[in-house]
Amino acid sequence: VRALRYYGQADVRLDEVPEPQTTPGRVKVQVDCCGICGSDLHIYRRGSMGPPTRERPHPLTGELLPVVLGHEMAGQVVEVGEGVTSVSVGDLVAVEPLLICRQCQFCRSGQYNRCVKMGAVGNSGNGGGFSKYVVIDEQFAHVLPEGVSLEAAAVAEPICVGWHGVARSGVGPDGTALVLGAGPVGLGALLSLKAKGVGFVAVAEAVRGARTRMAEEFGADLVIETSSQDLAGEIGEATQGMGVDVVLEVAGVQATLDYAMAAVKKGGTIVNVAVWEDPPVLNIGMLRESSITGSTGYAFEYPLVLQAIADGRIPDPVRMVTRRVPLDQAVDQGIQALIDDRANQVKILVQP
Amino acid sequence: VRALRYYGQADVRLDEVPEPQTTPGRVKVQVDCCGICGSDLHIYRRGSMGPPTRERPHPLTGELLPVVLGHEMAGQVVEVGEGVTSVSVGDLVAVEPLLICRQCQFCRSGQYNRCVKMGAVGNSGNGGGFSKYVVIDEQFAHVLPEGVSLEAAAVAEPICVGWHGVARSGVGPDGTALVLGAGPVGLGALLSLKAKGVGFVAVAEAVRGARTRMAEEFGADLVIETSSQDLAGEIGEATQGMGVDVVLEVAGVQATLDYAMAAVKKGGTIVNVAVWEDPPVLNIGMLRESSITGSTGYAFEYPLVLQAIADGRIPDPVRMVTRRVPLDQAVDQGIQALIDDRANQVKILVQP
Repeated sequence: VRALRYYGQADVRLDEVPEPQTTPGRVKVQVDCCGICGSDLHIYRRGSMGPPTRERPHPLTGELLPVVLGHEMAGQVVEVGEGVTSVSVGDLVAVEPLLICRQCQFCRSGQYNRCVKMGAVGNSGNGGGFSKYVVIDEQFAHVLPEGVSLEAAAVAEPICVGWHGVARSGVGPDGTALVLGAGPVGLGALLSLKAKGVGFVAVAEAVRGARTRMAEEFGADLVIETSSQDLAGEIGEATQGMGVDVVLEVAGVQATLDYAMAAVKKGGTIVNVAVWEDPPVLNIGMLRESSITGSTGYAFEYPLVLQAIADGRIPDPVRMVTRRVPLDQAVDQGIQALIDDRANQVKILVQP
Repeated sequence: VRALRYYGQADVRLDEVPEPQTTPGRVKVQVDCCGICGSDLHIYRRGSMGPPTRERPHPLTGELLPVVLGHEMAGQVVEVGEGVTSVSVGDLVAVEPLLICRQCQFCRSGQYNRCVKMGAVGNSGNGGGFSKYVVIDEQFAHVLPEGVSLEAAAVAEPICVGWHGVARSGVGPDGTALVLGAGPVGLGALLSLKAKGVGFVAVAEAVRGARTRMAEEFGADLVIETSSQDLAGEIGEATQGMGVDVVLEVAGVQATLDYAMAAVKKGGTIVNVAVWEDPPVLNIGMLRESSITGSTGYAFEYPLVLQAIADGRIPDPVRMVTRRVPLDQAVDQGIQALIDDRANQVKILVQP
């Protein structure tokens, strides 16, 4: 079968690979669609930080580069391994792409997103969504609730990242929030905040375009275009000079961290959801009694997000999809388009 | 009366100033002793970040530079203003040096250390402990419990800073902790952790000397000399490779933040108690699901620390005092000695 594989910085190739085999406790999913993630762009532009590398195998999969890309996927179960009981052939599922060891202290205490060997389908080996089939653990195949489409299930992945970040922030309905960055994860955070009933949510983006339009469409109470507006001033005005309770940092550049520090209330929380290409300088003296908290992936959150989509607390998230491309155009019309045309492209789905 | 006043970077002078006047709700304290704080050294070496400056008055005191230094003080009440009921002439008191507005959202909700106009006796105007008298709000004059000496009460200030940092960390008796820096605040954090029953406390210092000896004396379970030992390796060995639950960052340099990131458990908390001269680079990707939390001063914690000293949960903290100097030697034998002879000097008390 064909698969888009990552070899190294700016080196992604459409290869012929063997079809993955179903093993006990696992299920084979025929991929219907798989989103291109911001992290895929980071890997493409800057190179993976590995493992795996060309020399160092991933500790869970034992694989070296190249690996198949793509981790935001949904599809249909076409085969189930021995002992699988919760999923059947023909089921439509969202694929939670995590690979975990099940043995470390974190895995054994319900914190599997902190697994010491953590990997993911789509960048650690064990295949990926930019190919026709993936084989995953039964636990990570989430049968779609009534009314949730396969495309919505693919888009559920970045929403889960946002949802987990919001959960880490501890914000409640009385709280106020700022989301820095209105890409898919930022929009996912916005949708999650609104699904959780948070009264005031501001969203900031560098330039006006598809992302700011979607932030408005998805219910942001305030949209700030940082290239032309004074973020700290806008937030100060909206919060009687106190700042917001929580900031979701989904952009990951020096300027946005500085915005976060300027916008957060004393004692508030900045949640880092972003992947950073360059580590920022932290004006730590200005932190005072606020916190910066990391957020990694998600744990037990796929079912919550799928259910919120099903019952309308998260209104149709497929609206963030701006393009669909076949596998052989995934680089030129997908990855490259997201890098070059950030103003108009938000989520691009690959259809293997 | 004589007072040591700060004019600007490396410019501290012994001046004659008017004796401060007692006003309603306030008490006049004759200072017995006042510690030189690490923050005094920062101000001396790098200059204050103000307010106040020469041109910009402090919003609470309305004073410009110069201001009297010294905020870690204890003494005897010599006069009480109209309406004062909780303190009497002759009482020995610890002076909590905060200046607060009592009007902002934080002051009105029991978070006075987050006051939007926050200042301190000893660097914002309203006098300071490096002079014979200070006049402070009744609320901030803490009568010493039986058995607590005036010197212990002066040293209570850095312990309160450590105590508050420990409280911010959320660590409990089952937890594990690392304190980075064994100056007075680091030792205060160690004493606080032990007073709260935390089972494992490691303390790291750059070089062996008075500070590491005191860390041992004050009950550290592990003392790491970072110039010759591998901190991450030592912490890994002591925690089965998991890292510590909390790190108290009391040193405030790039290397110690890097140590903190390397030593903290996934999901753990780094509390910044340090004052930073240069903002550090944060390898934010390595934060994963850990947090960095700021800690500023203390609120409602003086009585807790004084009581812990009285009942022996904090064993005699005056042992951290390495020298006592009169006011006219406070710069040469005090501030300068702490800068030049960090290995042998820990807490120096000025006796006005």
